[in-house]
Amino acid sequence: MTLKIGVVGVGMIGREHIQRLGNKLVGAQVVALNDVNAKQAEDVAARLPGAKTYSTGEALIAASEVDAVVVTSWGPTHETYVLAAIKAGKPVFCEKPLATTAAASLRIVEAEVASGRHLVQVGFQRRYDKGYRALKKTINDGVIGAPLMIHCAHRNPSVPEAYVSDMAIVDTFIHEIDALRWLIGDDYVSAQVIVPRNTRHTHAMLDDPIIVLLATRNGVRIDGEVFVNCRYGYDIQCQVVGEDGIASLPEPESVPLRRDARLSTSIMQDWKLRFIDSYDVELQDWIEAAKTGKVNGPNAWDGYFAAVTADACLEAKRTGAVIPIVTSPRPAFYD
Amino acid sequence: MTLKIGVVGVGMIGREHIQRLGNKLVGAQVVALNDVNAKQAEDVAARLPGAKTYSTGEALIAASEVDAVVVTSWGPTHETYVLAAIKAGKPVFCEKPLATTAAASLRIVEAEVASGRHLVQVGFQRRYDKGYRALKKTINDGVIGAPLMIHCAHRNPSVPEAYVSDMAIVDTFIHEIDALRWLIGDDYVSAQVIVPRNTRHTHAMLDDPIIVLLATRNGVRIDGEVFVNCRYGYDIQCQVVGEDGIASLPEPESVPLRRDARLSTSIMQDWKLRFIDSYDVELQDWIEAAKTGKVNGPNAWDGYFAAVTADACLEAKRTGAVIPIVTSPRPAFYD
Amino acid sequence: MTLKIGVVGVGMIGREHIQRLGNKLVGAQVVALNDVNAKQAEDVAARLPGAKTYSTGEALIAASEVDAVVVTSWGPTHETYVLAAIKAGKPVFCEKPLATTAAASLRIVEAEVASGRHLVQVGFQRRYDKGYRALKKTINDGVIGAPLMIHCAHRNPSVPEAYVSDMAIVDTFIHEIDALRWLIGDDYVSAQVIVPRNTRHTHAMLDDPIIVLLATRNGVRIDGEVFVNCRYGYDIQCQVVGEDGIASLPEPESVPLRRDARLSTSIMQDWKLRFIDSYDVELQDWIEAAKTGKVNGPNAWDGYFAAVTADACLEAKRTGAVIPIVTSPRPAFYD
Amino acid sequence: MTLKIGVVGVGMIGREHIQRLGNKLVGAQVVALNDVNAKQAEDVAARLPGAKTYSTGEALIAASEVDAVVVTSWGPTHETYVLAAIKAGKPVFCEKPLATTAAASLRIVEAEVASGRHLVQVGFQRRYDKGYRALKKTINDGVIGAPLMIHCAHRNPSVPEAYVSDMAIVDTFIHEIDALRWLIGDDYVSAQVIVPRNTRHTHAMLDDPIIVLLATRNGVRIDGEVFVNCRYGYDIQCQVVGEDGIASLPEPESVPLRRDARLSTSIMQDWKLRFIDSYDVELQDWIEAAKTGKVNGPNAWDGYFAAVTADACLEAKRTGAVIPIVTSPRPAFYD
Repeated sequence: MTLKIGVVGVGMIGREHIQRLGNKLVGAQVVALNDVNAKQAEDVAARLPGAKTYSTGEALIAASEVDAVVVTSWGPTHETYVLAAIKAGKPVFCEKPLATTAAASLRIVEAEVASGRHLVQVGFQRRYDKGYRALKKTINDGVIGAPLMIHCAHRNPSVPEAYVSDMAIVDTFIHEIDALRWLIGDDYVSAQVIVPRNTRHTHAMLDDPIIVLLATRNGVRIDGEVFVNCRYGYDIQCQVVGEDGIASLPEPESVPLRRDARLSTSIMQDWKLRFIDSYDVELQDWIEAAKTGKVNGPNAWDGYFAAVTADACLEAKRTGAVIPIVTSPRPAFYD
Repeated sequence: MTLKIGVVGVGMIGREHIQRLGNKLVGAQVVALNDVNAKQAEDVAARLPGAKTYSTGEALIAASEVDAVVVTSWGPTHETYVLAAIKAGKPVFCEKPLATTAAASLRIVEAEVASGRHLVQVGFQRRYDKGYRALKKTINDGVIGAPLMIHCAHRNPSVPEAYVSDMAIVDTFIHEIDALRWLIGDDYVSAQVIVPRNTRHTHAMLDDPIIVLLATRNGVRIDGEVFVNCRYGYDIQCQVVGEDGIASLPEPESVPLRRDARLSTSIMQDWKLRFIDSYDVELQDWIEAAKTGKVNGPNAWDGYFAAVTADACLEAKRTGAVIPIVTSPRPAFYD
Repeated sequence: MTLKIGVVGVGMIGREHIQRLGNKLVGAQVVALNDVNAKQAEDVAARLPGAKTYSTGEALIAASEVDAVVVTSWGPTHETYVLAAIKAGKPVFCEKPLATTAAASLRIVEAEVASGRHLVQVGFQRRYDKGYRALKKTINDGVIGAPLMIHCAHRNPSVPEAYVSDMAIVDTFIHEIDALRWLIGDDYVSAQVIVPRNTRHTHAMLDDPIIVLLATRNGVRIDGEVFVNCRYGYDIQCQVVGEDGIASLPEPESVPLRRDARLSTSIMQDWKLRFIDSYDVELQDWIEAAKTGKVNGPNAWDGYFAAVTADACLEAKRTGAVIPIVTSPRPAFYD
Repeated sequence: MTLKIGVVGVGMIGREHIQRLGNKLVGAQVVALNDVNAKQAEDVAARLPGAKTYSTGEALIAASEVDAVVVTSWGPTHETYVLAAIKAGKPVFCEKPLATTAAASLRIVEAEVASGRHLVQVGFQRRYDKGYRALKKTINDGVIGAPLMIHCAHRNPSVPEAYVSDMAIVDTFIHEIDALRWLIGDDYVSAQVIVPRNTRHTHAMLDDPIIVLLATRNGVRIDGEVFVNCRYGYDIQCQVVGEDGIASLPEPESVPLRRDARLSTSIMQDWKLRFIDSYDVELQDWIEAAKTGKVNGPNAWDGYFAAVTADACLEAKRTGAVIPIVTSPRPAFYD
């Protein structure tokens, strides 16, 4: 059986997923497209045999030929389309964020619970990364004992001028927020943000770097550096300190060089390449789960939890205080 | 267009490729099966919708519904099936070895040249490994200047009792023979084999380890350790020393651990996993090339060259002498 | 000229320094010994040609044959002996801590300033470690730009039962307190302490691990993990994140092994060996500086600053609050 | 007791040893100097209290105030001075080579045996290097089982124009010749030399790189790359492959950097710094051994063995053949 997919939003990430679904993954076909820019949707459809365009996302989602939906439109529209998919009873893969506010994310959670079916997956792709999975397996196998601390870092070589302070949390550290919670199977209870001296490579609207401190229900303490003008590369570090040892995220494979008085490996520059393989694994897994009415990846609750945590981090940064992370009660539906 | 594939030989590697073609790759469908063990072919067909069995490999190859052939039968039958595929004008992917003798490999080369079409690819999968490709790119980009030497090693933790001395060349080092020639774009001109003290972990019929010395047309010198009872793991090392620097094959990604007084990463034990990803890339590339009448991977000439080189290594080991590596003239067809 | 040295306190560390002064270093001779345990002093003197014992530390310090003093007695006696040495106008090398309270340390600072001569060096040996020096040189050379953050860790495999919570600061992290301040040439302005979930390997009187957060005058933020029952080894980590790159403390040299499915190097178990070479460099430097009336190493002000910082860390841990680090005005004498 | 030392030859290496004996080591004093350039000896003596000059090396060696001799003169004079020291019954430390021919080295061996006293040490300093010692301990502890192969490399960034082909053996690889024999406690029985394509960075009188193949009595096989215009640094590699695992020479400590898209450590450029610490350990050990009439380091037999091996390597390179390494019978004196 081929899963017939409609894609809402054919910007860069939408077109990448369409490419992926058509040329690299199995068991799915993109049959429907929509974009706020109708011309762009038509251009993409013209190069995609068997796909047609719809004038609205809602129409696409309601179309009988569409089995499942991929939402890659502008963030503020996510809530509408995800709710529509739930209403239509169709599996939906929504790129992060699930919604732009915690309240909107919670409405999605409530709608999904009310529907009684598991339909929503959020595009936190790190859970599908080979390195993170190996790290999680190491932890789960008990190799390092119970986790006590996580030291991590999310570094970009540089960011565009339009990137401002809040984005360090909601666009960048949001990946750690989801991935670390999944990694150790624990929930956050408080957040604090520390602002070191700014690098001279930042601009007036961006505090860079920052350090986010999170505490979990089990007492694990996380310090996460976010440094988006670090110059030297796109570098994701994650070290989990356990009772019996320490395990770290693998460095990406690289050709070791002895040259010019240095023994070196390369550090990636382009964030899009760092987890490129994980997008394939993620979407393939979603296709297979969607066919059987399941969600294996990050679900609506995870998307909501990430939103609440991000809000707490933002408030922590604004106030300098330790901010509790408080969510609605977790529905048994997500157990 | 879907490439309709017939598979001759449904043993372990055959079934793996069938699985791969059905579940992971795009653009192909397995429609025909044959095996010397008819029952086994029927069992596999029973679980593969749209596939039927043929009583002989020749019948399968000739069948009009078969666009292209995968040969994963017992080595001694490779020549027959590859020649049949050439005769039928169908693309054929043949697992290594292309044939069990250099003479048989040459017959295939001659048949392909006579056919005037590029049809044969040999299953040397390392050319599709991410690490080897990155290493080749580093060399091609001129980062280390002209290659002068290669130090390499092919180590297995252990081998079954049935593994005897010649297999260290024809089954094990054969991968280096093809991969290194491709890596530096050069041909071998002589071989020598050195036999160190045997490890106590070997048996009477197996000299282990050995060191193979190869010289190339450009004067590059290769020393290749083959050590198939090294105990500690499956470990493939390759270091290319150039005029301006040294580049090495990346170590596979692994979770760094600090535990029990050691800072460590893991070394694989199972050779099947070391290049597992490369099989997918290899076969996907073959599918796409086959559709356009091309062969991008190791071709019949490469298979023949490997066979001649392996023969020279065997003689070098037997005699202790430096043995010239002499092939038929290379047909312009392969330029 | 040979510097004639008197040693007050011939316990383990005292005897090690005596050994060092006699057999490995040049330009000094131990001529006088004192210990609260007179018998022990006599035993050591009996094996040390040319050395005699004194009934009190004060008498030793006052003795005309003594050019310079090494204080390796019990911590609570340090203040008395260091003040006596200042009064006698003799160079004094005092093992850490300079004194057991910040107030006492300040009295030493004031006495030294009043004396008008640079006489006091504190035994913070890390400033003499090859790795720390290489790291400092890297920073000073501008290789990573201005420091913004330091991530560090001080881990012991285990500690004796008598080791309780405060000691994580005053005995263990005290080394980072001095070394990091020297490393980046900056002063601390506040401290915070975070207490993660305790490891099951600790005991009721010891919170382990803890994370110390320090802020400096220049806005550099330090997170320092102290984990003294980490099981796996004695491991000192220090990573300085600068505007243009990151530099780390080198791992100690170790034989790389491929064995038992792991690629590994060893991690030390015994803290006494980690900086063993630095003790020689430290004391040799002190000898040479003492002869010319200088102090190159950590001085009384550094000892005082460390004491004030440690007090703030203790209070921060007790209260959970961010505690300002406030010292007396720094005398121009120490510029 | 202070060992009174006379130094014959006050060129660069002689002056370094004088500096070392005076300022860093204990238990010795340089009291006598000689050089073929009398003026240079006087200049050095003028800055060395208590040292006087002698008009000939023989006179210095015979002088009653001289307890032991350091020979750092021009290679061709070594034989004369070492024989003179043996005749005088005085311990002698002779920089490598022991003599410029195997025959001359054998005359020294015979003279020492005839004297009945252990007097001669040769300046192969790698035996005193921390890294080599750790590697030897790993092997001796049985961690990797019986050694089967050694892969090693000796690389210099560049050499002066005066450096010609033979020097790759007699000045450069000579260090591996001694160190590897000591490392595995084995003797060589044959040599072969392979000449890869020359690097473009060499000149007409220098084949660079070369690969030396040695076989030992126990069947261990060594491949040693010598590449003296490798451009990228002074790099000494040594990997011992044993029955149960592989152990390697540690890389020198270096500050890990993340900068400019690379994760790197530095590679030394200056060979003089690579083993700088080992010279101190070597000479200190010699001083202490000399006082008790022993030789712990490389002795005259080791110097002779190295000379015979180097001669075989030179012949192997000249002829392209495998050359047996045959020495005089080893005197029981050296057991």
